[in-house]
Amino acid sequence: MSTYSRLIRFIPKSSAHPGPLIGEPADPEIDVGIASYESKAIEVNVYSGRSVLNPGEKTGQIEIVDKLLSPLGQNEVGTIRCIGLNYVNHAKEVNLPIPETPTLFMKPSSALADPYPSPTIIPKSFVSDNAADFESEVALIIGKEAKNVSEDNALDYLLGITAANDISSREAQFAQSQWCYSKSFDGACPIGPAIVHKSQLARLEEIRISGILNGTTVQDSKLDDLIFSIPKIISFLSQGTTLQPGTIIITGTPAGVGWSANPRITLKDGDEFRVFVSHGVGTLINKIVEEK
Amino acid sequence: MSTYSRLIRFIPKSSAHPGPLIGEPADPEIDVGIASYESKAIEVNVYSGRSVLNPGEKTGQIEIVDKLLSPLGQNEVGTIRCIGLNYVNHAKEVNLPIPETPTLFMKPSSALADPYPSPTIIPKSFVSDNAADFESEVALIIGKEAKNVSEDNALDYLLGITAANDISSREAQFAQSQWCYSKSFDGACPIGPAIVHKSQLARLEEIRISGILNGTTVQDSKLDDLIFSIPKIISFLSQGTTLQPGTIIITGTPAGVGWSANPRITLKDGDEFRVFVSHGVGTLINKIVEEK
Repeated sequence: MSTYSRLIRFIPKSSAHPGPLIGEPADPEIDVGIASYESKAIEVNVYSGRSVLNPGEKTGQIEIVDKLLSPLGQNEVGTIRCIGLNYVNHAKEVNLPIPETPTLFMKPSSALADPYPSPTIIPKSFVSDNAADFESEVALIIGKEAKNVSEDNALDYLLGITAANDISSREAQFAQSQWCYSKSFDGACPIGPAIVHKSQLARLEEIRISGILNGTTVQDSKLDDLIFSIPKIISFLSQGTTLQPGTIIITGTPAGVGWSANPRITLKDGDEFRVFVSHGVGTLINKIVEEK
Repeated sequence: MSTYSRLIRFIPKSSAHPGPLIGEPADPEIDVGIASYESKAIEVNVYSGRSVLNPGEKTGQIEIVDKLLSPLGQNEVGTIRCIGLNYVNHAKEVNLPIPETPTLFMKPSSALADPYPSPTIIPKSFVSDNAADFESEVALIIGKEAKNVSEDNALDYLLGITAANDISSREAQFAQSQWCYSKSFDGACPIGPAIVHKSQLARLEEIRISGILNGTTVQDSKLDDLIFSIPKIISFLSQGTTLQPGTIIITGTPAGVGWSANPRITLKDGDEFRVFVSHGVGTLINKIVEEK
């Protein structure tokens, strides 16, 4: 039985430990994304494991974060599951009917990316579209193999949550009927900063998510606006299909995407987009860099 | 420089080698799918490696096939890329316009499955649809890391081809705008039997693909009916996106799917579907089993 509330993956300042470590921030109140951005020292109680899927035990060792990483590595996550159109108010802003079943698209694990200070690069081929957009999302992390799971039992398979940015090229998205291509480039799925254990999430509908572009809040919702609940999503995706531990499910974006704004907003070189998720997840910060 | 023409992955009869081996069939003319189905002995010149991505050298050892496996394992392929609507005659039969850009959807690696004698199981949740369908496809296997590749250089990154069956649940497919869910259940992507090295494929447009349901040919085409060529597909998918060695790209299905037949055809318990691909790939045989 795990006793942590939340975990981060990070490179420590100590050169004695050059590789990524797993641990729990010593300050239970700290927003590790903001603290890292402001170059404040983040003390971490290091765990013995090398993966949030298998964190082991608290070692007693304390390390300072040099660089924040995505809580899971590309080699741990498999294919990323993505739910489209899952907030009532987002379906309204894009003038689409409320779907009757969850809408699933996918990203390859190569899309997974680290938070700031790693840059969030819009590839040359998509920069030319002038159509890159943000999508703040709550990401679920599956903790144990799930197949044909009922809604009633679905939360048994959830390890915890983090934040994600479902970066999209809208021109590419609407140039074909399927969304995968426009959302799958390298770096199109930053996640982090902390994974919060489900034990901290008594009432899922109270989780709050915000998207903040260059200091202005453009998306803000609670999960009570979800069309399909978290147990429903896990159950639906597991029908006939094995969800391996480490599977990430991003659960849709609330109203306020750039493509629906008036005037329209697209992500530009130098922009800063933040996804804040409550309950200790903290702020996923992405500095946008257009590839030259 | 590899000297093989084609490779298979298999479990040998010899109990001295209980795990999967890689090798080239000794008879250059044999259709390993048919031979395995008919319980004929398939002699294989064994290679030293354990993966078609890294086959090593011919060992001089000969083994007999006990069980044919998919040429790559689930742990080697990452997210499977799938091109929809890529044959002129299939676009016509489903009454959709010829697309201007390739249409991409994805399957997780957990969908990858072995040929006969492994069963091809339609999960309970999709059996209830009575809407399972076949799609014969040519599958590309990427041999080295590809990113931002031009059409002119695209074939440098191709290792070879095999056959695939893009098994789909049509009710689930048309219940939402995105196709991933309906095509991603465990076992929804059998591939095999042999991977044929690109050195054997001088004129890609002459590759022939057939789909045979219970002995009746229902799909039959050459790749000269492709809307987007193989170099175009590889180049397009690599824009901004790293295709790792082992990435499988299934390239679309020719005319003749069951859902468009009159009367409509769906896959049923006990059906046998075969995908034949020329140039030495052979016949991918799938015995359909409805999960009870």
